[in-house]
Amino acid sequence: MSDTTGKTITCKAAVCWAAGEPLKLETVQVEPPRANEVRIKILHTGICHTDEYTRSGNDPEGLFPVILGHEGGGVVESIGEGVTSVQVGDHVIPLYTAECRECKFCKSGKTNLCGKVRATQGKGVMPDGSSRFKVDGKPVHHFMGTSTFSQYTVVADVSVVAVDKKAPLDKVCLLGCAITTSWGAVVKQDGIKGSNVAVFGVGAIGLGVINTANVVGASRIIAVDTNPDKESWAKKLGATEFVNPKELPEGKKIQDHLIDITDGGLDFTFDCTGNVHVMRSALEACHKGWGVSTVIGVAAAGQEISTRPFQLVTGRTWRGSAFGGVKGRTEMPTLVKDYMDGKIKIDEYVTHTQKLDNINGGFKDMHAGECIRCVVDMS
Amino acid sequence: MSDTTGKTITCKAAVCWAAGEPLKLETVQVEPPRANEVRIKILHTGICHTDEYTRSGNDPEGLFPVILGHEGGGVVESIGEGVTSVQVGDHVIPLYTAECRECKFCKSGKTNLCGKVRATQGKGVMPDGSSRFKVDGKPVHHFMGTSTFSQYTVVADVSVVAVDKKAPLDKVCLLGCAITTSWGAVVKQDGIKGSNVAVFGVGAIGLGVINTANVVGASRIIAVDTNPDKESWAKKLGATEFVNPKELPEGKKIQDHLIDITDGGLDFTFDCTGNVHVMRSALEACHKGWGVSTVIGVAAAGQEISTRPFQLVTGRTWRGSAFGGVKGRTEMPTLVKDYMDGKIKIDEYVTHTQKLDNINGGFKDMHAGECIRCVVDMS
Repeated sequence: MSDTTGKTITCKAAVCWAAGEPLKLETVQVEPPRANEVRIKILHTGICHTDEYTRSGNDPEGLFPVILGHEGGGVVESIGEGVTSVQVGDHVIPLYTAECRECKFCKSGKTNLCGKVRATQGKGVMPDGSSRFKVDGKPVHHFMGTSTFSQYTVVADVSVVAVDKKAPLDKVCLLGCAITTSWGAVVKQDGIKGSNVAVFGVGAIGLGVINTANVVGASRIIAVDTNPDKESWAKKLGATEFVNPKELPEGKKIQDHLIDITDGGLDFTFDCTGNVHVMRSALEACHKGWGVSTVIGVAAAGQEISTRPFQLVTGRTWRGSAFGGVKGRTEMPTLVKDYMDGKIKIDEYVTHTQKLDNINGGFKDMHAGECIRCVVDMS
Repeated sequence: MSDTTGKTITCKAAVCWAAGEPLKLETVQVEPPRANEVRIKILHTGICHTDEYTRSGNDPEGLFPVILGHEGGGVVESIGEGVTSVQVGDHVIPLYTAECRECKFCKSGKTNLCGKVRATQGKGVMPDGSSRFKVDGKPVHHFMGTSTFSQYTVVADVSVVAVDKKAPLDKVCLLGCAITTSWGAVVKQDGIKGSNVAVFGVGAIGLGVINTANVVGASRIIAVDTNPDKESWAKKLGATEFVNPKELPEGKKIQDHLIDITDGGLDFTFDCTGNVHVMRSALEACHKGWGVSTVIGVAAAGQEISTRPFQLVTGRTWRGSAFGGVKGRTEMPTLVKDYMDGKIKIDEYVTHTQKLDNINGGFKDMHAGECIRCVVDMS
């Protein structure tokens, strides 16, 4: 029992006050957890494009002021009434995709999309409708149910999972989003072993897909990116080939090129860009009769994907994946073990680190082509 | 051995001379089958919207003059060299989706889309590049590898299957397209038993989907059509509910209504219209997390489907089905048996019949709302 239990904690957090503004380091009051809530001391957090999407103002559902961040790792400081799934002192990863094990979704056995806290999470508040964050007495919104850009955060007990204390939190924090998202998108599909695969976009997610496809035994893994510097990255993680769409003959579509070099198209493709035009290419690069294209990237608001329905009628499947289809509370401990056993790569992704007081530098890092992930030290 | 073996047969056929013109009854010369070809005396044929699509001139790949028709039943009159799969006198159904059992597609075990005769079939000729039909010495194109609107036709041996001689050809001819297409689209998907299903478009295909969903044990089958006369048809085949989008409150989208009345959406939806806007509704009416939408209808040239990628990322799957995913030569005998055993309904679909000399009347029938299928007596 820490001496802060039941008390408001004053700490530092990076607050985004308005759409498009840089984050500002603020002194924030973090209320104690209420029933079925958990207060976590965040030690490390990744910075993801989804944080930037909301910060930039492109997200029409963005709410301000807000404490962003959803790829964190920390230690449970205190728990509210009724919390049984984690204990004080547990090392934990907050989950933006909750797992209540009670709702229609959780019970279906068909999806990881839990419905329990979805509505309030989308409104930037805790399940009881209020915020635990205040700056100068003014409430600040939560983000994705996690808000890991604060030294202390409060999450719902269905939105957090305890992990092995031996796992380094400055690495496994990336299981909070990127690594898990890409891992699940591959392993939860049958048939990738022995198949050919194309991965569009060689960022953290794309590299994770490449790595996982390699681990499960895809026979050919073609990485596609317009940045030539990504070739060495892709090959380091297991890509067998690299194609730069900008280097194709004028007028040659990437999907047509891929169909040419694979005798009819890919068995599996993955969009890891969030670009709707790339999503179309990824679908149309699939082999007639059986190719499956998975959308992982998050597109900007209002954008739409399109294709001729003939693409589907002739046997291609268009699907998507959120958080890799992974049920965080149930599956995360195994992912951490797989990392500890060397089956899942994480260390390779951490190309940049920052201190909390230069978190805006981390956002700048992300936009640089050579950055895969920047992890922020919250101490 | 009939006395016409090896000789050109002169018979009647309905020829479409140019895009948009009505069919014209002509005296046609049908050459004997060459190697790996089969000449069939067609006894009955259905008329399908795909015939009308090409006749109308809307199909940019339509070739003229042409003998349309792809839903036929007949008797083998003679066979070319090397044909072993059917014999003279066999009752047969021509297959617009061939099954060679040798190509990459057939061997994949993942699709029914055979590649063997695809290229020449699309060019309106036999696999050797020439036509077997002539009118006044002028070659006439084949259609979909079948051309069942002729009293005699020639097809590739991979494009025909023998069926039980006891099966009435004026009924099982519909297994050449509509019935098989809808049957396969349902039975080849796991999980429909006990699920809720919506079927958009209550024509022959839609009714087949309803019937099959009922047979496999869907718990709720919602038929959707803008023609109120289709309600009794849908319920006769097993629909539990009927929704007319035109009767919804102004501004209410059909997908939102369906989500409302199903506590979150459908487990499975089927587009049986060919309308790209309906295809979108069918996808978006799916339940978040697991809903699967299957496109069966054939859209007009150049039309595209679209949606927000968020629909896929949150767990919906968009797929398609051609000829129900059925491998005709392998599976058709079982479908005929299922019909004979009362498991597959066909008789109910034949609402109209015509003689060959009034085949244009059959096309008019099809456009009438009360027609499901018109079968033409070719004698």
